[in-house]
Amino acid sequence: MGLLDSLLNPASVAIIGASPNPHVIRGQLLLLLRKNGFAGRIVPVNPSHAEIDGIPCFPTIAAGGGGDVALVAIPAAAVLPALEECAAAGVKHAVIISSGFAEDDAAPPDLQDRVAGLARRTGMRVLGPNAEGFHNEVARVSATFSPAVDRDADDNPTAVHARIGIVAQLYNRGRALGLSFSTVVSTGNEADLTAADLLAHMVGDPDTACILVFLEAIRDVAAFAAAARQAAAAGKPIVAIKVGRSAAGQIAAASHTASMAGWDAGYDAFFRHHGIVVASELDEALTIAAALVSNPRAKGGRVAVLTISGGAGAWSADMLDAEGLTLPELGAATQAEIRSFIPSYGTARNPIDLTAGGAQGGGTLRAIELLTRDPAIDQIICVTTLANPARVTLDGPALRALLAERRKPVLFYSYTLPSPLGRQTLAEAGAVICPSMATLACAARALQHPAPPPALPPPLALPEAMRTRLSGPAGTLPEHEAKALLAACGVAMAPARMVTQRAGLAAAAAALDFPLAVKIQSAAIAHKTEVGGVRLGIADMPALKAAYDTVLANGARHRPGAAIDGVLLERMAAPGVEMIIGAIRDPTFGPIVSVGAGGVMTELFRDVAYALAPLDEAAAITLIGTLRSAKLLQGWRGAPAADMAALARLVSLVSRIAAAGQATISELELNPVIVHPAGPGSSDGGCTVVDALLAVSPAQIKGA
Amino acid sequence: MGLLDSLLNPASVAIIGASPNPHVIRGQLLLLLRKNGFAGRIVPVNPSHAEIDGIPCFPTIAAGGGGDVALVAIPAAAVLPALEECAAAGVKHAVIISSGFAEDDAAPPDLQDRVAGLARRTGMRVLGPNAEGFHNEVARVSATFSPAVDRDADDNPTAVHARIGIVAQLYNRGRALGLSFSTVVSTGNEADLTAADLLAHMVGDPDTACILVFLEAIRDVAAFAAAARQAAAAGKPIVAIKVGRSAAGQIAAASHTASMAGWDAGYDAFFRHHGIVVASELDEALTIAAALVSNPRAKGGRVAVLTISGGAGAWSADMLDAEGLTLPELGAATQAEIRSFIPSYGTARNPIDLTAGGAQGGGTLRAIELLTRDPAIDQIICVTTLANPARVTLDGPALRALLAERRKPVLFYSYTLPSPLGRQTLAEAGAVICPSMATLACAARALQHPAPPPALPPPLALPEAMRTRLSGPAGTLPEHEAKALLAACGVAMAPARMVTQRAGLAAAAAALDFPLAVKIQSAAIAHKTEVGGVRLGIADMPALKAAYDTVLANGARHRPGAAIDGVLLERMAAPGVEMIIGAIRDPTFGPIVSVGAGGVMTELFRDVAYALAPLDEAAAITLIGTLRSAKLLQGWRGAPAADMAALARLVSLVSRIAAAGQATISELELNPVIVHPAGPGSSDGGCTVVDALLAVSPAQIKGA
Repeated sequence: MGLLDSLLNPASVAIIGASPNPHVIRGQLLLLLRKNGFAGRIVPVNPSHAEIDGIPCFPTIAAGGGGDVALVAIPAAAVLPALEECAAAGVKHAVIISSGFAEDDAAPPDLQDRVAGLARRTGMRVLGPNAEGFHNEVARVSATFSPAVDRDADDNPTAVHARIGIVAQLYNRGRALGLSFSTVVSTGNEADLTAADLLAHMVGDPDTACILVFLEAIRDVAAFAAAARQAAAAGKPIVAIKVGRSAAGQIAAASHTASMAGWDAGYDAFFRHHGIVVASELDEALTIAAALVSNPRAKGGRVAVLTISGGAGAWSADMLDAEGLTLPELGAATQAEIRSFIPSYGTARNPIDLTAGGAQGGGTLRAIELLTRDPAIDQIICVTTLANPARVTLDGPALRALLAERRKPVLFYSYTLPSPLGRQTLAEAGAVICPSMATLACAARALQHPAPPPALPPPLALPEAMRTRLSGPAGTLPEHEAKALLAACGVAMAPARMVTQRAGLAAAAAALDFPLAVKIQSAAIAHKTEVGGVRLGIADMPALKAAYDTVLANGARHRPGAAIDGVLLERMAAPGVEMIIGAIRDPTFGPIVSVGAGGVMTELFRDVAYALAPLDEAAAITLIGTLRSAKLLQGWRGAPAADMAALARLVSLVSRIAAAGQATISELELNPVIVHPAGPGSSDGGCTVVDALLAVSPAQIKGA
Repeated sequence: MGLLDSLLNPASVAIIGASPNPHVIRGQLLLLLRKNGFAGRIVPVNPSHAEIDGIPCFPTIAAGGGGDVALVAIPAAAVLPALEECAAAGVKHAVIISSGFAEDDAAPPDLQDRVAGLARRTGMRVLGPNAEGFHNEVARVSATFSPAVDRDADDNPTAVHARIGIVAQLYNRGRALGLSFSTVVSTGNEADLTAADLLAHMVGDPDTACILVFLEAIRDVAAFAAAARQAAAAGKPIVAIKVGRSAAGQIAAASHTASMAGWDAGYDAFFRHHGIVVASELDEALTIAAALVSNPRAKGGRVAVLTISGGAGAWSADMLDAEGLTLPELGAATQAEIRSFIPSYGTARNPIDLTAGGAQGGGTLRAIELLTRDPAIDQIICVTTLANPARVTLDGPALRALLAERRKPVLFYSYTLPSPLGRQTLAEAGAVICPSMATLACAARALQHPAPPPALPPPLALPEAMRTRLSGPAGTLPEHEAKALLAACGVAMAPARMVTQRAGLAAAAAALDFPLAVKIQSAAIAHKTEVGGVRLGIADMPALKAAYDTVLANGARHRPGAAIDGVLLERMAAPGVEMIIGAIRDPTFGPIVSVGAGGVMTELFRDVAYALAPLDEAAAITLIGTLRSAKLLQGWRGAPAADMAALARLVSLVSRIAAAGQATISELELNPVIVHPAGPGSSDGGCTVVDALLAVSPAQIKGA
């Protein structure tokens, strides 16, 4: 029996401050617990009452004999003493519904910490505070005041019997879709039990087929990751709604990588790594969960749309196209067979317009049957109208038999609001009617098999020079120093010379050959271009001398008194595709590597992809493939293809450096990286790291 | 009385082939017409029956005495003779529900045209064929077989009494939101009456406050535009769902502009011009229409979110942010006042978390009242839970009185499914509960005042040289010829020389000065770079001679036998922001001008905006401002601002050339255009047109 079974499936439930008044939360708790059929012992605790609605009421929790779970909805100031009494009486779990803790600026700052401390000290586990409680649909335990879980008021036909667990408050929206639930839990402030604990419980719960989480933050990354890995191994999909994106704002940082990362980087990388599906809207999350629990996974994104209206077909095609799904034209044999049972004014291309007449007499079912056998189609989308009872032409049991073969996903949408008969017919077949075409399209995308979690490359042994510098003082390293350290780690760098005296220019130029780039070097100048500290395309010695003088003069003018290390001379890079590679240390998820389009595209179009570091070359190739600018690397408009393999090797190496040095590397950025053409008729390929930035800063240990 | 009043509000309705069988469409028509309370005369026509359900039935339409409207749902082959009889009997309008016309590949190709011809010849106007008919909610005329309009089955509380007209089939989804409707019409194949006709009718209909159209195509642009202008003048918003975007595919074309345009260009430009709001989803369109008819317009996009849950607040902020709305922090005075009536664990920042306790006792109403008086806020978004009858803390009549002042838009969303009491309370207040946060965010964006339609610049008189060439042979002009013609139209061009003999290089170079660009010129070579026909950054005479030889050799190798006009020499352009300006001749909307980010960004990120041509400089500035790359022009990351005014002048000039030459200019593209820095400390600004393309091809007159 899991840790949380005695919380979520208790033999007895105490209600601290239980009340006969149904208009206060303490009264609603008792009411809903009884109404929804809790079969265990109920222990109302309130010295003002001898009994409530026929149940004996006790002056103290001890007098009531304790209980597996105590529900606490009394004022915040009274919570701690009540918890002490509960723990002393042997209560196993407390659900704190009361507000007035960490979310409250006026609350005593340590109040929630003291709740957490009490949980650790006594072993009594705590859900909340500031939680809505939970509802266990299987065991009929409603430990919540939310009437969304009122079973009496639920007249929705059940379409799907595979149960979904929810760490959120989406019960009645899900019931409206005909879904089944196992446990619905609100974790509140997570003083003790976190979303990760509930996730782990649900992964282990045989009644739960899929888990839906609404997250404001992941408080316990290691536990959440472990539960996500178990879920993947158990084949239980996780769908997450994460809020707080726009609030992230700009971070003050040296690199573009860090200033752009905001919310998305860490969570995007984490969700991608664990194959967690991200939704932005409640109905979208529920539709995805519904599709996942009622269908097999799809081999890919090639969909066939079955409809009875040309307009609906064209519109569906647009919505599916927007989610990256494709509508291939059907093969000649399939088309011919469909045409045999539809009127001439229908069409057997894709979208397939059966017409109202063609859908009657079992046409829809025949078409679904045919399409499940067509190897060129991965998913079937049925867009129809279920408002008219006379037009509900589907035979529920026959459809159920067909869907039970689970050969391919079949999704349904009604552009009119479905009638009760329409809902009942589809529910009989075990199929969900998606609430909108947009959510259907998201579900079709999510039905594709997730990529397996990437293999971790072996740990990187940082060279001595890097280790020494990383244990040195905090600060942003000048380019020449960052490049030297990265070169020691195995990053190939273009030939370069540091020049500290004007007299050294000629020898450096002779060693490098023109045309050259000239760049001032100073720990005080992070953005060299902005102070006029860079000159490019220098073609000869007179121009080189002039450039040297200019960048030093500009540096002195913009940063008077700054210590200047010298001037870096480099051969101008050969042409290629401009990219950016970066790494940040996310406060929640640790080292995150990124790769994106370079130059102005970096920030303007945010074409950047993030992954947990480290990752191997194969995973880097996959990551690069998610960029819109991947087309540039593949050879855009007749340009030669760039050396994708070299770029992937470099992304992987940067991720391994960031991971190995995560204790003190706070930012790492190669920007731009020029990826040179590779392949027949091209030069040797490879990448040139034009500029590099390394920021050293000891990690803040969370909670320390 | 408008043209369509006798169609949509007839005194008599005939049903050709009327049947007592409710399972065929001809039977359903009679049933719904009666059930929904049609008060006029019904004329069933069917020689097989003497009466149907107590109504006399006639052997012919003539015997029945004709009728204002005849409903036709008989097989396609029988439709024309029936229409002839109707016209002869004085029927004013026919509604053809039958399929088997232009949408049917197997139908006689001219069948639909013959229907249109009959309409023109007899003056009997025709809706359809292949239409679902119409439903007039005000006059109680249901001339359709769609049970979506069954009034008996409608138990939805009405929230909004201002009526929406629909050219589509969205009736029951809209009723579920508590909306009121005037007329719902399906126009089918539009053999005679088009969406534009219905739009014009609804604009003139005093019972219609807002019009919602579902479009597969606009068949009559001039009429649609005229109706849209009347709607704007009458203050009646139009919301459009346009389908068929993804189906557009690639057009074979010489310019990037034309190959990218696809569906979006023309419709985007047309909708933008007329202030028509575009929606992609049914519920989104209905929510926008609902918000528009139940609220005043907003001054801008600064929203305040009122909620009772921190998580809901953060999530709402994300969704609103994604639609470009902002959540400014509230002023100190407003915050202090809100804090006075909410618990300490709430927050008076934005999103405002009133908490469940704070919302009770009228807190939500007080906060709305306060925010309607805060000049820093344009719209109020109330995100709450309406599932729990005990938590519906809003007072319907008090909220109605507040909203009736129409000071600012107030939008509502319930993250739980609203209970009947919740829906009733909001309906009493005249407020709609948006079906999702995503649709609410779209509605909030749409509530902002649309920009007034841009003023048309005066017509451009094309110079003699351009007029002569445009009346010449079709073809894509080589760069030098296109540039010369554009220069004659007033487009400033960089100094250039055509060289046709190697001996002429020195004189041309002396006139232009190095560094130079060298480009092969031939009508047979549209994409010079792809054949190695361009060399850039030529620094001296030896390099120039080598470049000259190379581009000619490459041209001869890739296009053997092509006529080469010569080699164009131009001074290399000064630095600046790379943009693209184009114009196409859209088959539906005529000349469309576009402006977008240049280089690889053009196609990779599709950062291009379209407008109907011609447009003036002010409208061009607005258009450029919609681009993500507008930031580059404004001075990105410390770079100097570019000469936006010069770019806008050039966009306007290109639009006027395209408009003046629309009879034969099929494509026009300036790509790239370098926009130079302007302002203090910068050079003189202006734009350099690096390359230009002009395709001459006579316009296909539609229907000719």
